Amino acid sequence: MASNFNGNISISVFGESHGPSIGVVMDNLPAGEPLDMDRILAFMARRAPKKDSTTTQRNEPDTPIIQSGVYQGKTTGTPLCAIIQNKDTISADYNSVSYKARPGHADYTGYVRYNGANDLNGGGHFSGRLTAPLVFAGAVCEQILERRGIVAGAHLLSVRGVKDDVFDPVNLTVEQLNLPKNRWLPVLNEKAGEKMKIEIEKARLATDSVGGVVECGILGLPAGIGSPMFDGIENRIAQLIFGIPGVKGLQFGEGFRSTELMGSENNDPFYMDGDVIKTKTNRHGGILGGISSGMPILFTVAFKPTPSISKEQQTVDYVSKTDEILKIKGRHDPCIATRAVAAVEAVANIAILSLL
Amino acid sequence: MASNFNGNISISVFGESHGPSIGVVMDNLPAGEPLDMDRILAFMARRAPKKDSTTTQRNEPDTPIIQSGVYQGKTTGTPLCAIIQNKDTISADYNSVSYKARPGHADYTGYVRYNGANDLNGGGHFSGRLTAPLVFAGAVCEQILERRGIVAGAHLLSVRGVKDDVFDPVNLTVEQLNLPKNRWLPVLNEKAGEKMKIEIEKARLATDSVGGVVECGILGLPAGIGSPMFDGIENRIAQLIFGIPGVKGLQFGEGFRSTELMGSENNDPFYMDGDVIKTKTNRHGGILGGISSGMPILFTVAFKPTPSISKEQQTVDYVSKTDEILKIKGRHDPCIATRAVAAVEAVANIAILSLL
Amino acid sequence: MASNFNGNISISVFGESHGPSIGVVMDNLPAGEPLDMDRILAFMARRAPKKDSTTTQRNEPDTPIIQSGVYQGKTTGTPLCAIIQNKDTISADYNSVSYKARPGHADYTGYVRYNGANDLNGGGHFSGRLTAPLVFAGAVCEQILERRGIVAGAHLLSVRGVKDDVFDPVNLTVEQLNLPKNRWLPVLNEKAGEKMKIEIEKARLATDSVGGVVECGILGLPAGIGSPMFDGIENRIAQLIFGIPGVKGLQFGEGFRSTELMGSENNDPFYMDGDVIKTKTNRHGGILGGISSGMPILFTVAFKPTPSISKEQQTVDYVSKTDEILKIKGRHDPCIATRAVAAVEAVANIAILSLL
Amino acid sequence: MASNFNGNISISVFGESHGPSIGVVMDNLPAGEPLDMDRILAFMARRAPKKDSTTTQRNEPDTPIIQSGVYQGKTTGTPLCAIIQNKDTISADYNSVSYKARPGHADYTGYVRYNGANDLNGGGHFSGRLTAPLVFAGAVCEQILERRGIVAGAHLLSVRGVKDDVFDPVNLTVEQLNLPKNRWLPVLNEKAGEKMKIEIEKARLATDSVGGVVECGILGLPAGIGSPMFDGIENRIAQLIFGIPGVKGLQFGEGFRSTELMGSENNDPFYMDGDVIKTKTNRHGGILGGISSGMPILFTVAFKPTPSISKEQQTVDYVSKTDEILKIKGRHDPCIATRAVAAVEAVANIAILSLL
Repeated sequence: MASNFNGNISISVFGESHGPSIGVVMDNLPAGEPLDMDRILAFMARRAPKKDSTTTQRNEPDTPIIQSGVYQGKTTGTPLCAIIQNKDTISADYNSVSYKARPGHADYTGYVRYNGANDLNGGGHFSGRLTAPLVFAGAVCEQILERRGIVAGAHLLSVRGVKDDVFDPVNLTVEQLNLPKNRWLPVLNEKAGEKMKIEIEKARLATDSVGGVVECGILGLPAGIGSPMFDGIENRIAQLIFGIPGVKGLQFGEGFRSTELMGSENNDPFYMDGDVIKTKTNRHGGILGGISSGMPILFTVAFKPTPSISKEQQTVDYVSKTDEILKIKGRHDPCIATRAVAAVEAVANIAILSLL
Repeated sequence: MASNFNGNISISVFGESHGPSIGVVMDNLPAGEPLDMDRILAFMARRAPKKDSTTTQRNEPDTPIIQSGVYQGKTTGTPLCAIIQNKDTISADYNSVSYKARPGHADYTGYVRYNGANDLNGGGHFSGRLTAPLVFAGAVCEQILERRGIVAGAHLLSVRGVKDDVFDPVNLTVEQLNLPKNRWLPVLNEKAGEKMKIEIEKARLATDSVGGVVECGILGLPAGIGSPMFDGIENRIAQLIFGIPGVKGLQFGEGFRSTELMGSENNDPFYMDGDVIKTKTNRHGGILGGISSGMPILFTVAFKPTPSISKEQQTVDYVSKTDEILKIKGRHDPCIATRAVAAVEAVANIAILSLL
Repeated sequence: MASNFNGNISISVFGESHGPSIGVVMDNLPAGEPLDMDRILAFMARRAPKKDSTTTQRNEPDTPIIQSGVYQGKTTGTPLCAIIQNKDTISADYNSVSYKARPGHADYTGYVRYNGANDLNGGGHFSGRLTAPLVFAGAVCEQILERRGIVAGAHLLSVRGVKDDVFDPVNLTVEQLNLPKNRWLPVLNEKAGEKMKIEIEKARLATDSVGGVVECGILGLPAGIGSPMFDGIENRIAQLIFGIPGVKGLQFGEGFRSTELMGSENNDPFYMDGDVIKTKTNRHGGILGGISSGMPILFTVAFKPTPSISKEQQTVDYVSKTDEILKIKGRHDPCIATRAVAAVEAVANIAILSLL
Repeated sequence: MASNFNGNISISVFGESHGPSIGVVMDNLPAGEPLDMDRILAFMARRAPKKDSTTTQRNEPDTPIIQSGVYQGKTTGTPLCAIIQNKDTISADYNSVSYKARPGHADYTGYVRYNGANDLNGGGHFSGRLTAPLVFAGAVCEQILERRGIVAGAHLLSVRGVKDDVFDPVNLTVEQLNLPKNRWLPVLNEKAGEKMKIEIEKARLATDSVGGVVECGILGLPAGIGSPMFDGIENRIAQLIFGIPGVKGLQFGEGFRSTELMGSENNDPFYMDGDVIKTKTNRHGGILGGISSGMPILFTVAFKPTPSISKEQQTVDYVSKTDEILKIKGRHDPCIATRAVAAVEAVANIAILSLL
């Protein structure tokens, strides 16, 4: 199913950008798990637009209202549904888009897929806003995983060539994972963050946009979790990651760089650290044969530049089938990757819980 | 399920490298589809080890024996099972590996995952040999797709820095897709192929290995196929691609390169080509919002260097929990990416048929 | 997943009897299908408690509020979520039940399953109230199926020995299917309905309850729909039917009665009716090998007597592990089967749409 | 998928009656489980045709040949594939059936479903012979469950009105479950078995057939296993049971009989037996709300009379669309229910293991 992910837990996301509400149903969660709503809100705030020029100016409160599956502050084990009401939707901005396909968006492909019946306002079900319930789901999973000693974290690894530091592939700590979570831009190196901010501001002033790479790390997963072939850690993460709008690539460990190494350079030698089996390096990214090795799990995700830009663009009206010039009005993120960091981290939590 | 992929068709792969046979069950195939076995064998031959120094010296006949689901040369619509008998297995080579974890392999992670019960010989179910039934399945899908006007092709885009030409993202033709299929090394530019061969031969002589990148293109898929969120074209391809041993990364269209572009550079302008909607460029790789745009679908896959190398490596015995030196004997591919081209192409065929 | 049904469409039901709301997410519906909300409400009203003594006195408005998936009165093709707010919940009645297991209910089994974390009030997620979103889903499917010429209907076949007429297995008409839909008790023969009403009233006065059998028919499904083995029409209907609380049995066509016939008596002879292949009799219930034969599809469902009765019952407190006497207070249906007719019909619609 | 069942384990059945082989792939089995092949063969022998007049005279050796997933006598945890070669197939018998639809069979519905491409010989994939790999799968599960203290058993409860004793719903023992397994006819009461045999022999001599009811019991499943709604114990058993050819009905506990009882008669009072919670009676059949109560699980399955009878029958040729007279030649079981006992028991084992 399109908006339905099934593992040991399932996630069913629903909603359109300008409909009454968006939300998620989570099935098969473990029962009796206390949920700290303040922490969930704090996680979701990291995805929400910031009150400054780096992200869209829309005021999205994004408060999830739990409908079921939580009783006396704990998961019941039966389906957990949360809805987020849509409030601040200025349809006028979007209505002017009409049937002119916004380049880089799913307007045209969605129109064909759904025979013109889907809700086009604000991107409808394709809107980046749908990552809000996804992040909610990840925030729920985060607390359940934490009790099992598993922690995920993500940061903005690069914005248009400006690079942050990388997670330490071998000696990654929970502190390092958590470092970006409290920062205004989710980076490890605040100087890099300042430079990224400049790039983003430049794009905004040029009515343009920039993309970025997000790095994610997971600690505490013991060796032996996952499966070969189609249902390993990579497969699960991949199936969810490509559900985040704007993702164009995914790599684990050294990823594409490993293709330029010799086997003797890329293989990670095993060694005994006391009675624990470790690898000296971690180019494999903590996964071998779809299964965790006990080393930190590491992957990076490519986000294309926000396709919504205010510059004039050439396009077509896909109903009248005519060439057109499009000028998108409204408020748009000059860099979706900044907010996508929380979505990537959410997906990591969902994927891992779905494997336990 | 680990070795079970479910879409509109399902693929269930079974077998171990040194067991009686490996194979696949394909369920829910369309009924009445003629299957040309010679073409299936030709497809599979592209995955099989070549009779020279670039790949392993093992003699694998890889003849699929159909058990069910084909009647009078056509699919019946009920499950199609094919088995491939294992013949040329020299256990002695592999048995010397014992419980010393081969770096870069799933020996250790598989041992933990299956509590030591899995068949370790030749990698067992984790062996690259399991791509044979996967390629068989892809070869079956290829013929069904072809009748619907859809064709996939793949080539070796790079080996350790040596680059082939790229598929033309806008004007890709079936001829270009088919070009690498008949070549000894599956490349577009034969001079590039010669240079790659030298790199591979160097690695072999150094008892080492190299990785590579595979590019895949799909033509003929009409606009409007796929879905948003977790079940789009990217999600399906990703779930299958990460089932091929050695894959470390996957990107669609410009992929990671798009993160260095401005939105105005990365967006593909739409235009009317007669009454057909097209994009002038194809950085989106033929997919927007998980749904086909009608442009060629393009993705690239990173294969790490073959982890089996004959050089001495440091490792551990994961049963006795001691540090060890490992020297892998036996015959190994200096570059799995060459044979993986057929596997990537097979996966593309399976993924697309699973969406129709 | 527990509350998640997946076919060509998926249904994800959530909610607890006394939580903020109950609801359902439907994924993969066809796009552009007009939905007549009045008809949906009328369908749901058939499941709702009636304003008299045959059913519970609770006032449940059961108005579904659509959150997504419907735009300008038509399905968008993206997930349709509807919620039904819980309003009239008198917790005091239920709270007195505490940890005394109500015989015939899932109090104890749910408690063990969810380690005591599930919401026990009013049965929580196990409540018969959860059939409201299921009926909503069925009512949505009904309208989509009707446009494809397929109609389902159900009636109360028996209540404690009092029998209604049966659907004509061979010459069933849409009129006959619709007959019970407008009646106070959903029966074919109103005299039988009067007698059933007396039985139900007797049970109510005796602070006891009765069960019943529901018969369901489906017309208009062409021959050739379904599949052998685990995913045929029977399997789909069965998976959903046993999701309705109180169901203890399911049979197709002659069902258990066929076990007392000879093969020559039970086989339905085929014949040509013009150029249409039909069977003279329809003991097979319209399904052969999991696949529709073109004859009316017929099945019957056994509902046990409402387990909630006001009589004193022997039970245990499953927390203190002591023998106890239980006297259930509150308002309860003396016969759930009357309202379950709409649930069975809903399930028929969902199952059939999931196969198309 | 049609022939694919997915729970915590998956079962993928393939093959046609007259193809090279039939078989099954089992995925996600626990690793390291010893398999006693002699016991598996003994289980399968109970499904195999007997050497006398009560079943078909075909000589089916039904020896499963394991292709993967078993190493040194234990499950590896990776997919287990077993094939059973088809040997004794006299096509001449079946070929005379041609396109005349055998009443009660899936010849016509399968032809429409698969556009005439499916293998019609001997029923193809619809053949009762496909229960052989299903029974193999159940026999594998049986040994895994037994180590967890869970045992299933089944017997022929009735043949055309002749009734066997019933399993004791409250005090059922493993001995009682195992009693029918070693008997020539799988019954509890051998005198009843003698009478059944007479009925079956009468049917055979009359070139006719009889049906029967199979009762199945499961012991040792602790309370709290299963789930509400669509994925409880009933749903899983139902999905598999209706995969056995000839099944027309399924009921749990009192089933249809419960519809004639008052709530006060049907509810099973709970009581403390020491510190174990039990019910005094077991009309609920060990399942409440889809979840095990700790009491024996009990269900009964209706098998219609064998549709293959040698009497002349009226039918149609579904290709030429003409009325025809059919006289089926060949060897056929006068009562499939006798052999189906093993299939029901197999399904019980698969369903329960899929829930653990």
